[in-house]
Amino acid sequence: MLLASRLLRLQLFRFVIILVLVLSYVENGNAGLTSTFVRTQWPAADIPLDNEVFAIPKGYNAPQQVHITQGDYDGKAVIISWVTPDEPGSNSVKYGTSENSYDFSAEGTVTNYTFYKYKSGYIHHCLVDGLEYDSKYYYKIGEGDSSRVFWFQTPPEIDPDASYTFGIIGDLGQTYNSLSTLEHYMKSGGQSVLFAGDLSYADRYQYDDVGIRWDSWGRFVEQSAAYQPWIWSAGNHEIEYMPEMEEVLPFKSFLHRFATPHTASKSTNPLWYAIRRASAHIIVLSSYSPFVKYTPQWMWLREELKRVNREKTPWLIVVMHVPIYNSNAAHYMEGESMRAVFESWFVRSKVDFIFAGHVHAYERSVCTFLFFMPYRPINTSSYRYVANQFVYLYLPLPLNGIPIRSFS
Amino acid sequence: MLLASRLLRLQLFRFVIILVLVLSYVENGNAGLTSTFVRTQWPAADIPLDNEVFAIPKGYNAPQQVHITQGDYDGKAVIISWVTPDEPGSNSVKYGTSENSYDFSAEGTVTNYTFYKYKSGYIHHCLVDGLEYDSKYYYKIGEGDSSRVFWFQTPPEIDPDASYTFGIIGDLGQTYNSLSTLEHYMKSGGQSVLFAGDLSYADRYQYDDVGIRWDSWGRFVEQSAAYQPWIWSAGNHEIEYMPEMEEVLPFKSFLHRFATPHTASKSTNPLWYAIRRASAHIIVLSSYSPFVKYTPQWMWLREELKRVNREKTPWLIVVMHVPIYNSNAAHYMEGESMRAVFESWFVRSKVDFIFAGHVHAYERSVCTFLFFMPYRPINTSSYRYVANQFVYLYLPLPLNGIPIRSFS
Repeated sequence: MLLASRLLRLQLFRFVIILVLVLSYVENGNAGLTSTFVRTQWPAADIPLDNEVFAIPKGYNAPQQVHITQGDYDGKAVIISWVTPDEPGSNSVKYGTSENSYDFSAEGTVTNYTFYKYKSGYIHHCLVDGLEYDSKYYYKIGEGDSSRVFWFQTPPEIDPDASYTFGIIGDLGQTYNSLSTLEHYMKSGGQSVLFAGDLSYADRYQYDDVGIRWDSWGRFVEQSAAYQPWIWSAGNHEIEYMPEMEEVLPFKSFLHRFATPHTASKSTNPLWYAIRRASAHIIVLSSYSPFVKYTPQWMWLREELKRVNREKTPWLIVVMHVPIYNSNAAHYMEGESMRAVFESWFVRSKVDFIFAGHVHAYERSVCTFLFFMPYRPINTSSYRYVANQFVYLYLPLPLNGIPIRSFS
Repeated sequence: MLLASRLLRLQLFRFVIILVLVLSYVENGNAGLTSTFVRTQWPAADIPLDNEVFAIPKGYNAPQQVHITQGDYDGKAVIISWVTPDEPGSNSVKYGTSENSYDFSAEGTVTNYTFYKYKSGYIHHCLVDGLEYDSKYYYKIGEGDSSRVFWFQTPPEIDPDASYTFGIIGDLGQTYNSLSTLEHYMKSGGQSVLFAGDLSYADRYQYDDVGIRWDSWGRFVEQSAAYQPWIWSAGNHEIEYMPEMEEVLPFKSFLHRFATPHTASKSTNPLWYAIRRASAHIIVLSSYSPFVKYTPQWMWLREELKRVNREKTPWLIVVMHVPIYNSNAAHYMEGESMRAVFESWFVRSKVDFIFAGHVHAYERSVCTFLFFMPYRPINTSSYRYVANQFVYLYLPLPLNGIPIRSFS
């Protein structure tokens, strides 16, 4: 997989994008050079389970795999998730605005699931709401000597002038490259991650190891995800359609392990939803759920786009796994199905950015929709004809009237 | 809706297609004249519930809405479905090869569901397997004075020379046009219906009337569907995404009411599957389920196409709701998403026919894939430029080496 983290700072009259790219391997085809910066290649092998990045926290039934995500539409809530390995234990989160003073508490839920013969730990999700904007909160989960403390910073109030820095990560996995990417991101100053799908790559394993590699990934990303919201979208590696193991329910592991605030945006499915954060309206789509006309995702997106208020959130961002433009041989034209349905909406809605993963190569594009695009039916031998004419990341031309001051 | 029934007789060296078309209304746009035959237009209003075509059979808890579908891969089984309104009653089907002599019996299952405040009757599905080919079976369901008797004919053994006549119906509904279509079909000599989605149009109603109109439709089609298999596919009117009524589970009514033999073709979802019948291999796809690369439907179809054996079943037929080619203004280019994914597979697999509904106008086409197709991005004003260059029903050019003797 390619491990990519990118940083996006939203600030009025200023626009900085820092790009980090690792090409560890491309599954097929010749990707060519799509960036002048290519990081040294570490081995793409997964980090062994006994590596310290996967260390199990000490103490009986100690919470592990702690991660948070935004819990409401506007950023005054978080969903805190964790796993207890030995018994369900407490569903409570104790929290407050100063360390060692947990004045508030919230009660969550617990679930678990099986995958082949693997039996998950006890997966807790707890909504902590009614928070103040722009505040640091400390939170404590677990019981007695096994309890653990983390903290997070709430975003500024929704405001067109609110400055905020998002990191963008997709296709992360758990290789040495993954570790490099995560460490780089954590030094970057990013305040929240927009995750473009393909989390753990646990589906590269079989039988009980699938669940085991979801657990190790949860422990791996905790160093960031417990301290700032990761905004989740699902990729093909979350589908886990494995009939040979009698596991055929799409997204089974992902949906049990990762909560999203989908009801806050009137979505009826956790795989697609929207949040607003600082000056951004962020729409998360599911590349592998139905999206054609009349389907729930299509119906929902049509309504959500009407709720975008550029006076409040001048930035409109879409996060999903499969890019609708891609000149790479790998995954070539896999985004055509969604392009046929949503491209015109994205253009008409003046989406500022679509962040996608899937193709393990960096590309970006100005909006090409309004120009004639040479087109050939899929799967002909002619793809090289259009290669390099499609690139997948919209950088807005009119940018809602806001001039681009810097771009690097 | 448009009500269309078509008849397809599969016989070696002979090929007859009878076309019946009703244009009752087109939802938007000007369809233009796509056939020289246009039936007199009855009012498109639904038939009132007290009409005799919806009559409730006499007797306490008498089985109603009886319908059958193929129950296995090759036609030696049927699934018999019915509804009992008052109590679950018996799940048994008694059957045999002569009237009043029910030597065998099979045990089914019963389920029910709610939709808004509507509570369905008790929905029975019973697999009757181990049948002989080419035989007439009588079957009896229900208890005592309320029991009812029906019959069906099993198809010939899978054989390249086996002759068989399929009817093709889509977008049926329950208007006076629906009745005309059904009556016409029943006179036609069709032995089994390939149903291209959009069954009852119950979703045009609200609240409890949705369920009530599913029940009336079940009673309406019983006159045919209880006596010969209807091979089901789902359309947009089966989605029934109605968040205003807190009903958001796609295909809820359809999946409870209509069984398919999906496991016989290794499908993990009743919305897509395959059967073989006489000389035909029939693939049923779901236009509104995920179908892009890596999704379960995509994975399944890839494997199912490998199982097609033209030595045994020279005819390869696909049934689905949304056509991949459509020159009509209504539903223009809604099939693009699936076209991008499956068109090349259909061509390479030498699919003989794709039967689709959705667009309420008749069109047919030779395979156009190998020719250059002018293409413009969706939702531009340029669609008239390509109108009439796309038509959606493949009629095979090489036809697997079998010459077309007659076509009318």
